[in-house]
This record gives sequence, structure tokens and C-alpha cells, in this order.
Amino acid sequence: MRVEVVNTGTELLLGKVINTHAAYFGNELFKLGLRVQRQTTIPDGDDIRVVLEEAFPRTDVILITGGLGPTHDDITREVVAEMLGRELHLDQSILNGIREMFVSRGLKMNPSNNKQAMVPDGAEVLDNPNGTAPGLFVPTTENSPHLFLLPGPPRELKPMMENLVIPKLGDLLGPENSPDGTRNFRIYGVGESAIAGRLEAKFNEIDDLEVGYCARLGEVDVRLIGPESAIEAAAELVRVAYPRQIVTESEDPIEKVIVGMLRERGETVATAESCTGGQIASTITNTDGSSAVFGHGFVTYANEAKAKWLGVPMELIEEHGAVSEEVVRAMAAGCLEASGADHAIAVSGIAGPGGGTDEKPVGTVQIAIASREGGIFAKRYYQPVDRLSFKTRVTRLALDLLRQRLAGFELK
Amino acid sequence: MRVEVVNTGTELLLGKVINTHAAYFGNELFKLGLRVQRQTTIPDGDDIRVVLEEAFPRTDVILITGGLGPTHDDITREVVAEMLGRELHLDQSILNGIREMFVSRGLKMNPSNNKQAMVPDGAEVLDNPNGTAPGLFVPTTENSPHLFLLPGPPRELKPMMENLVIPKLGDLLGPENSPDGTRNFRIYGVGESAIAGRLEAKFNEIDDLEVGYCARLGEVDVRLIGPESAIEAAAELVRVAYPRQIVTESEDPIEKVIVGMLRERGETVATAESCTGGQIASTITNTDGSSAVFGHGFVTYANEAKAKWLGVPMELIEEHGAVSEEVVRAMAAGCLEASGADHAIAVSGIAGPGGGTDEKPVGTVQIAIASREGGIFAKRYYQPVDRLSFKTRVTRLALDLLRQRLAGFELK
Repeated sequence: MRVEVVNTGTELLLGKVINTHAAYFGNELFKLGLRVQRQTTIPDGDDIRVVLEEAFPRTDVILITGGLGPTHDDITREVVAEMLGRELHLDQSILNGIREMFVSRGLKMNPSNNKQAMVPDGAEVLDNPNGTAPGLFVPTTENSPHLFLLPGPPRELKPMMENLVIPKLGDLLGPENSPDGTRNFRIYGVGESAIAGRLEAKFNEIDDLEVGYCARLGEVDVRLIGPESAIEAAAELVRVAYPRQIVTESEDPIEKVIVGMLRERGETVATAESCTGGQIASTITNTDGSSAVFGHGFVTYANEAKAKWLGVPMELIEEHGAVSEEVVRAMAAGCLEASGADHAIAVSGIAGPGGGTDEKPVGTVQIAIASREGGIFAKRYYQPVDRLSFKTRVTRLALDLLRQRLAGFELK
Repeated sequence: MRVEVVNTGTELLLGKVINTHAAYFGNELFKLGLRVQRQTTIPDGDDIRVVLEEAFPRTDVILITGGLGPTHDDITREVVAEMLGRELHLDQSILNGIREMFVSRGLKMNPSNNKQAMVPDGAEVLDNPNGTAPGLFVPTTENSPHLFLLPGPPRELKPMMENLVIPKLGDLLGPENSPDGTRNFRIYGVGESAIAGRLEAKFNEIDDLEVGYCARLGEVDVRLIGPESAIEAAAELVRVAYPRQIVTESEDPIEKVIVGMLRERGETVATAESCTGGQIASTITNTDGSSAVFGHGFVTYANEAKAKWLGVPMELIEEHGAVSEEVVRAMAAGCLEASGADHAIAVSGIAGPGGGTDEKPVGTVQIAIASREGGIFAKRYYQPVDRLSFKTRVTRLALDLLRQRLAGFELK
């Protein structure tokens, strides 16, 4: 089954937005054993017709994103109907859904949204609980492949892919086409090339195994694909090589892992953040149910705030500087005390671009973990990357230290 | 001048690597006033011939990445030569360069690298100081557009683009070709369809104007493209329609706008966050130099924390609930007092998925802005979206209230 992807969106071609759809589709379809044979990005507007005319004869499935919005340059729905010689009809239940969404937000529905409720005859509606435009599935005809018309925004697209498109593709493939399995390992504290260097030769000895890597700021996903026996053999290699570094054998974010561990233990964590500016607290609270384990967070950007809320002596800051092991230990201890939590995370560093010195260049950061049982551990790191990447890396380094402590590893 | 981009690379379609080339080319070419009209990703191998055959008749320039490597499926160079009816000749200086690179790394050159020194007759070599394969420029012929054959790895591609490709494209454009300009408006508090509904008819009356919209959780970008006079006429329409809602006539994030406004006034802001869990503080501190305007942030997820750090009476919470105008006002007032800042932002809401009631369903949030001069303003919003989207929307709503206050608008 040949699959192509067409992404419409002027912003993707102007370079304002990185097109993550292509990689997302590649990953999702791979789970079904399918591969994207071609991906094309075009501006909003008339080009969709040309691209579809070219693609219709040579492919079995086309996944199209974007062009379902309310504005004049959103024409995917209309072009597809015209190419297939179908009428568009108003779907009253879609219209009602759009109207309700506007009402629930206290807004008035705009007449231009009406067109989002238009459906080509013979198309199946794919519900979109996260936006106004539903997706559409138009089954293959003599002259056209299966067409999926999907919304552009990832938070609308992804649930629709997982809940509706992937199962439908699975049906189209048929039961005889049993796809390979997949297993993900999320690993912290070791790089992609180091993992590949250590394990690739052994992976190569396992028949029918495919291994994919995806590295992001401080975390690496190792994805094993193949029959169950191959995956299990490879998984055992990963487990033996990285007992401490494996955060999860899933795609859960580290904060979900930590919230789960704390809930299981009936314990809590508090945060005292300087350079991350609240990102550690915000990351923890991204997890459903985090209120059971997180009650207090301090963003002590100013030295005065470190003194006032965490009880860090001003003399300590003056003597050692705000980015020092002494200060970050005092922050962690003070946070534990002030919050009454079982664990405290404290960070202080130089995010840049200003504020660096020869001794403490931009990218220097001190992280401390304090626990009622287990004492205070502090460590210096150096992450000379841009400001936003720095904040994310430090957030992950800090959360991973807490994870290791909760998992019973001695911190080092 | 019509430009297309073709990226070859199986890994891009498998989802193992996110294709950042498309955005990179979009940004680089935009500096010349050029726009990528189509971007296509194909696997390594024979598909390059099909894609080029389709693209030759319709475009003036094709930028091709990848397919210049030493392995059997790297065939871009050979396909181009064949399509143009050109011979390939061995370029001795390229071969010497490749050999030197291997020697300098203590490696032996592989015979398969020989093919990287092959050049189609009439092509110009583009030096690649960061890899073995040089780029190639093949000027237009009667049957083919200008072709740039470029390496895939970004660290090889980017210097080649900046030093060789962009200047050459500038030459091809010629001095008389003054590129179109662009202007971005970032607008809060009004949706994409409402903006289009209000302004699209007027935009259509302006010659040579192109308008693009990009909507993200609570913010909309309206991008005007065209000659300066068209942009200025359209910009005036936007300014008149949305004097309060325009956050910036640029692509700056709202936090950068706010940090700039506060710095100019010599004022500071503090945060008291419940449901956003630190995201407002983290967003503010994404901006360079935010330490001048932000010193204290409180993440008061627990009621006890609201009482202890912000002085919110527990009776007030018990009487009205944590998500109430009374409590969020007290949080803002307490935050102003505790921090000594000039402005305080306070939020309390129900991010879900749990915790909702009939009276206060998931998605309900109270936001307050307190200022030393200007008093306390509080407002209830309803944002029934997934947890992460909720946090981002609430963060933007809160920052936008502060922006409006700093800009002198009466809050409402």
C-alpha cells in the first residue's frame, strides 16, 4: 500500500513553523508497517489541485493536512469534491458542534465557519474534539485513492490520527497484514551515538530487528521494531546496558514517571528555581493528578527572593555567588523546610546570553536534591546552549536526579 | 522567480529525523524576497528522477538536498547529468580534497568516495569545507531550471547556503528585482475567522496583497505580504480594527513585549500561580534580561501554599472555593505585597481532567491583575481544552491582561 502525505500551509514554506508532521506521520505509519513514499508541502490555495492530480494515479492513500480552516485560502475540501465530481452538503451535526464550541467559549460564531460543516457526498466525518474543523475520509474510487483530509494543528491532528486514522488504515490493510510490534525506551544521561556505539553491533545480530533513535535536549528515545521475540532480545540488551538511565519503557514524559513514583510512595516534592524560572514546577504540573504530590513552588529569580522565601543567608550569596554549590544546597534545604515536602529540587545557573564570567560561563548550573531521608545531593553541570534549550535541559537534569533518588540509586 | 525544494532521505520519511531543511530554506530565501513554492521529500533512490521530471517545466530554481553521498542509493548527480544529456568527468581537485580529509582524520579513503568527485559538464563546484561531497550548481538550460545540488547534513548545508547559494541566487535575481516585503501582526483576544470575516473584503480591494493567517492557542498571526504600499494600506486596516488586540507588529512573543514595556517603565512583575503551575513565570523568564523585571514567583498549587505565602485567608478559600474571584483577588494582592513588585498576576483554575463541578466545570479559570497604581482587576474565563493547552491559553490570557494594562487600556 503506497502512502503519500501532503501538507498545506504557507507558514511551513515561509520557515515560520518547522514541519513536524512529516516525521510524525512517518513514525505513526511505521507502527502499521507502512512507509510514507512521498511528502509534499505546498502553500495554502490552488496548488492542492495540482498536487492531487499528480498523486492520484500513483498512490493508494493520501493523507492531507491543513486547508480545512474558515478562510478563503482553505480550499482542500472544495477541491477534493470537485475533482471527484461530488456535491458538498451541509452537515447539521457538525454545524451544531462548531456553534457549541463558540458558545462554550463565550464567542459568537462567524458565518465563515459555516464552510467547515460542508461535507462531500460519500465522505465519512472524522470527529475533531479539539477544534472546529472535522477531518474527512473519502474512500477510494476508480480514479482516486483513499483520501484523508486532516486538520493542520498538531493538537487536533494527533488525537484524530491515533483514534480514527490509524485504526482505519489498519482495516484497509486487512487482518492478514499483521504489523510488526514496537517498544520504546526513554533514556537520560547518555547520548544517542554512545548508545548506538555500544549496542549497534549486538542489535545487528538480531534477525528482523529495526532500531530507530530520536534525540531531544537531554533525552534519547530508542525504538525497537520487529517481531516480539526480536524486540524482547533487544530490550534485554538495553536493560542490561542502562539500568540507571532508562526512565521508562514507554513514551511517557519523565514528569509522569516521577508523579507516579511519588504517588505510589505517598510523598511530595517542592521546587526552588532560579534559572529555570518556574519550568520545573510547570513541567511537573503538566501531569494529571500532580496536585497530590506537588503543593509549593518558589521562583526565586532575585537574590532577595532566595533569602526571603528559602532562608538563604545573603552573606552566603555574597560570598559564593548565587550560582554555587553552597547556595543551591541552602535553597534546597530551605525549600524542604518552607514547604514541608518530602523532597525538594533547587536549581541556580546562568541561562545567558548575559551574566557569564570566566569562572562561571553561560551554561553553568548547580542542581540540588534534598530529601527528608537521603540528605542533600548537589552537582554542577555545564550546558552551553541557547536560553530556551538551557532551561529545558536543566529541567530534565533536575527531574532525572529526583527520579534516580526515588528509584533507589545513589546519586553521583 | 519560482523556487522549489527537494529533500532526499529515507530517514526523513521514516520519522527518525525531523526535516528542518524546509523551514531553513524558507527563512533563508525569504531574506531575498523569494518564497519556496513547493517542498518535496522523497526516499533515497530512483524517485529523484520522477520528481525532477515533474518540476523542470514549472519552476525556475530547484534546490536539492541529499543524494550526493558515496553509497549506491545516492544518485542525484548521475540522474541530473543524464536528464541534461551531460557527461560526468572526474574533478581531480575535489578528489584530492576528499583524500586529504580522510588522511587528516587518520582514515583510509574508500573507493566508493570516488564518485563524489564526479562533476557534470558545465556545472559549477560549490566547496564544502565540512564534508566530502561538494555541492554543484547547474545553470538553467532550455529544458531545465537552475539546479543546486546540496549536501543533506545541516552543518554542511548551512555554510554552503550562506556563503555560496544565497549570493548566487541574489545575482540571478538581479538588482532590478526588488523583493516583496512582509509584515506580521500578532493579535490576542480575537479568533482567526473573526479577523478574516471583518477584514477580508477590504484586503481583497488592495492590489498585489497576500494575507496569511496562523492561529495558535489564543494567538493569531496575520501576515501581510506584498509591495510596501499594499502592506501599509492593509496594516492600517488591521491597526484601526484591533487597536487593543495587537500585541506586536512583529513576531516577538508576548512575554518579550511585556518585558520590554516593564523595562522601559522601570517596573517589575511577580506571579502567583495555581493552575498554570509555574508556566507564567517560566514564560516570562524565557526572555533575555527578564531578571530586570521579574524577581519573585509563587506556585501555590496547594491551598495551604496560597495561605502561607500570599496571605489568602483559609476561610476565604473555604467559603468561595480556590477557583473564585475572591480568592484570585486575594492571591494577586498578597503577591504584590509579598514580592514588593509593581504588578502581580494571579491565576486559579481547573485544568482537569478531574476536579470539575457543575458550577465550575473543567476549563474554568479566574485571572487577576493587581498593580500598585490601577488596583485589582479580576475576570473569569472558560477554556475547555486539554490540560496542556489549557495551561498555555491561561498563561497567554494572563500575560495579555498585563500587556493591556501596561499599554494603558482599561481592563474589561
